[in-house]
Amino acid sequence: MKLVVQKYGGSSVKDKERVMNVARRIVETYDAGNNVVVAVSAQGDTTDELIEKAKEINENASKREMDMLLSTGEQISISLLAMAIEKIGRPVISLTGWQAGFKTDKTFGNARISRIDTERLKDELDKRKIVIVAGFQGINKNDDITTLGRGGSDTSAVALAAALNADVCEIYTDVDGVYTADPRIVKNAKKLKDISYDEMLELASLGANVLHNRSVEMAKKYNVNLAVKSSLNKNEGTIVKGANKVEKMLVRGVTRDNDVARISLCGVEDTPGKAFTIFSLISKENIGVDLILQSIGRDGKKDISFTVKEEDLDTVLKLIEENNDTICADDVKFSKDISKVSIVGAGMVTNAGVATKMFEALYNAHINISMIATSEIKISVLVDQKEAERAVVAIHDAFLLEN
Amino acid sequence: MKLVVQKYGGSSVKDKERVMNVARRIVETYDAGNNVVVAVSAQGDTTDELIEKAKEINENASKREMDMLLSTGEQISISLLAMAIEKIGRPVISLTGWQAGFKTDKTFGNARISRIDTERLKDELDKRKIVIVAGFQGINKNDDITTLGRGGSDTSAVALAAALNADVCEIYTDVDGVYTADPRIVKNAKKLKDISYDEMLELASLGANVLHNRSVEMAKKYNVNLAVKSSLNKNEGTIVKGANKVEKMLVRGVTRDNDVARISLCGVEDTPGKAFTIFSLISKENIGVDLILQSIGRDGKKDISFTVKEEDLDTVLKLIEENNDTICADDVKFSKDISKVSIVGAGMVTNAGVATKMFEALYNAHINISMIATSEIKISVLVDQKEAERAVVAIHDAFLLEN
Repeated sequence: MKLVVQKYGGSSVKDKERVMNVARRIVETYDAGNNVVVAVSAQGDTTDELIEKAKEINENASKREMDMLLSTGEQISISLLAMAIEKIGRPVISLTGWQAGFKTDKTFGNARISRIDTERLKDELDKRKIVIVAGFQGINKNDDITTLGRGGSDTSAVALAAALNADVCEIYTDVDGVYTADPRIVKNAKKLKDISYDEMLELASLGANVLHNRSVEMAKKYNVNLAVKSSLNKNEGTIVKGANKVEKMLVRGVTRDNDVARISLCGVEDTPGKAFTIFSLISKENIGVDLILQSIGRDGKKDISFTVKEEDLDTVLKLIEENNDTICADDVKFSKDISKVSIVGAGMVTNAGVATKMFEALYNAHINISMIATSEIKISVLVDQKEAERAVVAIHDAFLLEN
Repeated sequence: MKLVVQKYGGSSVKDKERVMNVARRIVETYDAGNNVVVAVSAQGDTTDELIEKAKEINENASKREMDMLLSTGEQISISLLAMAIEKIGRPVISLTGWQAGFKTDKTFGNARISRIDTERLKDELDKRKIVIVAGFQGINKNDDITTLGRGGSDTSAVALAAALNADVCEIYTDVDGVYTADPRIVKNAKKLKDISYDEMLELASLGANVLHNRSVEMAKKYNVNLAVKSSLNKNEGTIVKGANKVEKMLVRGVTRDNDVARISLCGVEDTPGKAFTIFSLISKENIGVDLILQSIGRDGKKDISFTVKEEDLDTVLKLIEENNDTICADDVKFSKDISKVSIVGAGMVTNAGVATKMFEALYNAHINISMIATSEIKISVLVDQKEAERAVVAIHDAFLLEN
């Protein structure tokens, strides 16, 4: 008997019709002779509505109490989904994060799963029950409820698949796979049949909005076969698997990420360790820094620019202000009106002409590049936000039309 | 340092203004130097809305999944209330039923508290935190979430007060005490300064809607001082305490209960054990039977009439139908258009004229009585539902105007 882990996102269970629809899909997999464990997100906009409710009372509520509040969203959807499966007449049980054995660290609002105690899960599977698990949540050592942060339900699903040694982990979303570019922007974008973990990791963290990067990291670490599929149709999705199992492509896809803010520290003293000071302050707050650019020093001074997520901008600016006696920047500039446009492909590393071709495509489209960063399998550029969609189309045309 | 347990009902926390209001009251008690533990219900109509959501998907959802769903209501209100107290700037922590150590039996939807493991509660109180506990819920031996049934948050509060040996348990509602009759029906109803557990028990189970009877039973068992107060004003409430501490009154109050259905089994064989057969079937379903009336046998047959809560009527009728080869009733009649009107008072037992005076008051008001039941401290009559309010006024005038 195979074990299938499925994950359904918030839009897949947003109303009673969709809940029934998802219930029928789960039962289909169950009736085909598989054991089924399902991770579910909160319905539709529930999480945002709960956040709104909290803000009306306290703009600065503690993260512990926010997690107590937000975790109810998934608890509602697991019980409703279980009821829908009961209606179809299959044995089913819903489990909250703590009931399903999810233990996390203490970082409220953005906790990491430390382990899953699978005893209860295995007990219920042994009874041939369909097990519906609340995604996005767990408990820490003190038995306090924690949430895993945005996209956490994907991570819950992959963690379940890894802990239970599942045959496949199917991630159902409102798109039916991973595309060479966002089909809303690029009309002739193509769906990928498969993609490697590393390429998917770059795409996920670059704003492809299909899978959360933590979940892909975990899938890579535990070698979990991921399938990205649509919960609305039966199209074949995209399989994410080990690099040795997929064909190396020069460029796998083009992405755009608007959730970027750029900060420039101008006229920082050009002494060793200066960059370390700044970035260690930021990492202490659990904020990720993405692109970093340091100008060549002049007159003993240099400029340091870097990007963070927009939601972290205020915190970082405050940090810089509070520590400017150490940092000693002449001026601090920032902008939110920028986007990061990237190309990803495992074949890139062996082909020197890729960057040139990308810059040429942007030059031909008269789009200015303000920062550049490269890794073995990606090249990212920062452009004006209003130019970003044109940039994606231009790059997609240059690389992917020929496939 | 005193320990005060407070309970706030759903209407007391129904919107953000009321949540802030309750937070201020709690902080007042805390700032006066008390330790404070608070049990809270779900906000306003949340529970009903969740039940509605469930019914849209499955009219016959299992009680286990219903409890999983409904327990989110209190989890939302405890986190919001904790955020409101954080905003005022006092140390606070919210705890779900299981986090607060509530262990119950396995009866989903109507569980009984078996014990409270107070370790976590005491830990938090030792840190001088205000502790906000989700009422109405606990977990059973399998770590499944259970709910205590309607009025369960009162029981949660009393159980907390008993387990923590609190100095007082204050129940805040939208009325400011226990009255001689429902003030919406009887204009000149008077608030009682105090009342005994036994009298309150009769009033609670008779539909006074102030305290749930389980909570009063528990208060009596563990000798918890209960204070019923309004969450909207600072009026002195009503104290519920031991019978030896309150003055014995002939009639303490008049109540009406519309949530009554009468079932009559006509022409049942007049043999010993017949009544036992019927009522053992009903009690197996955890359904409470209230008034019971058995006619004197004639031609070897008799009629048995009894009342149950309206919500249980269908289940009982089905039970009777399924078992009619054992019960062998010639005919089964039932009605929901009836009310139970009762008078309660510890002085009644020593005064034979009370029943006569009650029946006389109803006779003068031309109200017909269809069933009568008496105990040491109460007399209940069944009347047409449309006559019930007039009956309450007539009886109140006869007994309580003279006080």
